[in-house]
Amino acid sequence: MAGVKRIPADVIRRQLEAVFRTWGMAEDRIATTVEVMVATDLSGVDSHGLGMLPSYADRRRRGIMNMQPDLKIVREKPAVALIDADRSIGHPPSVMAMKLAVEKARACGVAAVGVRNSNHFGAAGYYSRMAAEMGMVGMAMTNAPGAAMVPTFGLEAMLGTNPIAFAAPATKNPPFSLDMATTTVAFGKLTISKRLGKAIPEGWALDEDGQSTTNADIAHAARRQLPLGGDRERGGHKGYGLGTMVEILCAVLTGAWADGVDDEGRPKHTDYDVGHFFFAIDPSLVRADGEFEDDMDRMMDMLRATPPADPSKPVMVAGDPEVRETEERTRLGIPVADMLIEETRAVAEECGAEFLLA
Amino acid sequence: MAGVKRIPADVIRRQLEAVFRTWGMAEDRIATTVEVMVATDLSGVDSHGLGMLPSYADRRRRGIMNMQPDLKIVREKPAVALIDADRSIGHPPSVMAMKLAVEKARACGVAAVGVRNSNHFGAAGYYSRMAAEMGMVGMAMTNAPGAAMVPTFGLEAMLGTNPIAFAAPATKNPPFSLDMATTTVAFGKLTISKRLGKAIPEGWALDEDGQSTTNADIAHAARRQLPLGGDRERGGHKGYGLGTMVEILCAVLTGAWADGVDDEGRPKHTDYDVGHFFFAIDPSLVRADGEFEDDMDRMMDMLRATPPADPSKPVMVAGDPEVRETEERTRLGIPVADMLIEETRAVAEECGAEFLLA
Repeated sequence: MAGVKRIPADVIRRQLEAVFRTWGMAEDRIATTVEVMVATDLSGVDSHGLGMLPSYADRRRRGIMNMQPDLKIVREKPAVALIDADRSIGHPPSVMAMKLAVEKARACGVAAVGVRNSNHFGAAGYYSRMAAEMGMVGMAMTNAPGAAMVPTFGLEAMLGTNPIAFAAPATKNPPFSLDMATTTVAFGKLTISKRLGKAIPEGWALDEDGQSTTNADIAHAARRQLPLGGDRERGGHKGYGLGTMVEILCAVLTGAWADGVDDEGRPKHTDYDVGHFFFAIDPSLVRADGEFEDDMDRMMDMLRATPPADPSKPVMVAGDPEVRETEERTRLGIPVADMLIEETRAVAEECGAEFLLA
Repeated sequence: MAGVKRIPADVIRRQLEAVFRTWGMAEDRIATTVEVMVATDLSGVDSHGLGMLPSYADRRRRGIMNMQPDLKIVREKPAVALIDADRSIGHPPSVMAMKLAVEKARACGVAAVGVRNSNHFGAAGYYSRMAAEMGMVGMAMTNAPGAAMVPTFGLEAMLGTNPIAFAAPATKNPPFSLDMATTTVAFGKLTISKRLGKAIPEGWALDEDGQSTTNADIAHAARRQLPLGGDRERGGHKGYGLGTMVEILCAVLTGAWADGVDDEGRPKHTDYDVGHFFFAIDPSLVRADGEFEDDMDRMMDMLRATPPADPSKPVMVAGDPEVRETEERTRLGIPVADMLIEETRAVAEECGAEFLLA
């Protein structure tokens, strides 16, 4: 197993800023993007923070990502809007979209904002948590570039890992915060297992012949992941259905789908024109002030009080591991795999940014 | 295995009407409720149509269901509303709520309507499909009376099977229509397996001691189902998270939660004050007219064209089995298990309604 080094969040922050500056991004968008990425690393979601930088560099190199995009609201109604991201890196248009959804929800009760023509936006959970921190129930989804999920009964991957994130504020507790790929695991988990040289559990992925595999290299190359649930008998068609729902809201509804199919009706997987979908509800327009948040506390406390099957493993609520991880990583630094440190060095060298993770 | 008899939809319709009339329901609410229940039986969801009648009779007998409720809108904003169902059977307030959500979405782009103080509303998929048939993207959820789902790492059931339904219209295809419990299977599947004397697959449910069981009687009595995904390693915490999301939207947000906890913070499972959540988006306010529906056709056709792992089992899209089943059952009648026929006879005899399934 390869080594891992603890690096302070602030060093990672400055490393990302240095790279993005040489890429020609505007300062306010650098600030937004770095904030999302570092918060994600702090929360323990290693696959979606700094770990994405090599892939972003690749997309920039291939001209898929536009570093000076013109973010435009192209449709707008009282409770809905559509943003064209002009091939931006996904984080700035996503923060813009969730802010707009929250603002509209304060007036209307609920609002949804879609984004098209975007790119990878990091961790979906950042945006739903952002809404919760503004007092809203929030939801965030994205279609994921690259086919990864094999539909139930299928042999080939047709959809991305298409995550769903949902958050809700409480009075005393940190927000309830769910962030899940609709595949059994996020593709990033295969990348991490590959990077660390670890085997993966049965039921996560298939090989090129559609057979179950425990080899992370083979699974990573084949990109044939099982939907949440696994096989048909254990509900895999539900994970497939949820992944399709995300595709409908993020890609079909926003028009990100427009370039998604080739002449034979097969997905193009061109790695761009990613779409996102954000959703906010103002609980103070449904319940009396504070009632919702108080009941959230009662529900979260009740769930944590479930008698555990194994006393050493208490029952948690979505968001608990991330809160604990953020506390620990803020204190001890963010663990970064040697391979990712070297990949980051290569990105910095290529664009002439200072390398700070040494 | 017990016997099954094919009964024409119209006979089941008249049987339900006869029972509801003796229960004192208003004619328009009988029509609504019977329409939802028979459409559900026709679509193959045996657990949520006529199969619920014995349970409804029980809830009426225990005074949990009010057959002459006063359905009231208690909060209203441009894109959101809250309905108090006055302990109604769930179908009429749910149809009212989805109609209101669709009407508001036509003006605002998106809208959400919650219902509290309700009861079992049948199949969630009926309401999302109803929105799709009105040209909307629709979503419907309910918290389910009775604890069934064991949280990840837990020993006891704490949440219901809390289903999520989602539908979207297409131009040529019937709507995409997903309707899924957030447990591996709907509780009704355990009821059906029990009724038919069939074993259940490993991974669906636990026994009283928290051990996996394949005995439908034991699983039905224990009410300890696994969340979608199963164990932690295979993503069961995601199913648990989705179930909690449904509880938050349907119960905590609507205030159906208010009576949900006893003095020690444990769920009361009082079998009433069920909450629902409905959500509609008008795609014509986001895309140009017809574009969304055309792209839905392309996506659904693309998914069905996925090369299958086994040529005798083609890849389907959510809603396909229900469309096929509705066509077949409209022709051949609805298969009803002998035990359910006898249970229906008992319900009819108790309230003095004519028995028509003989």
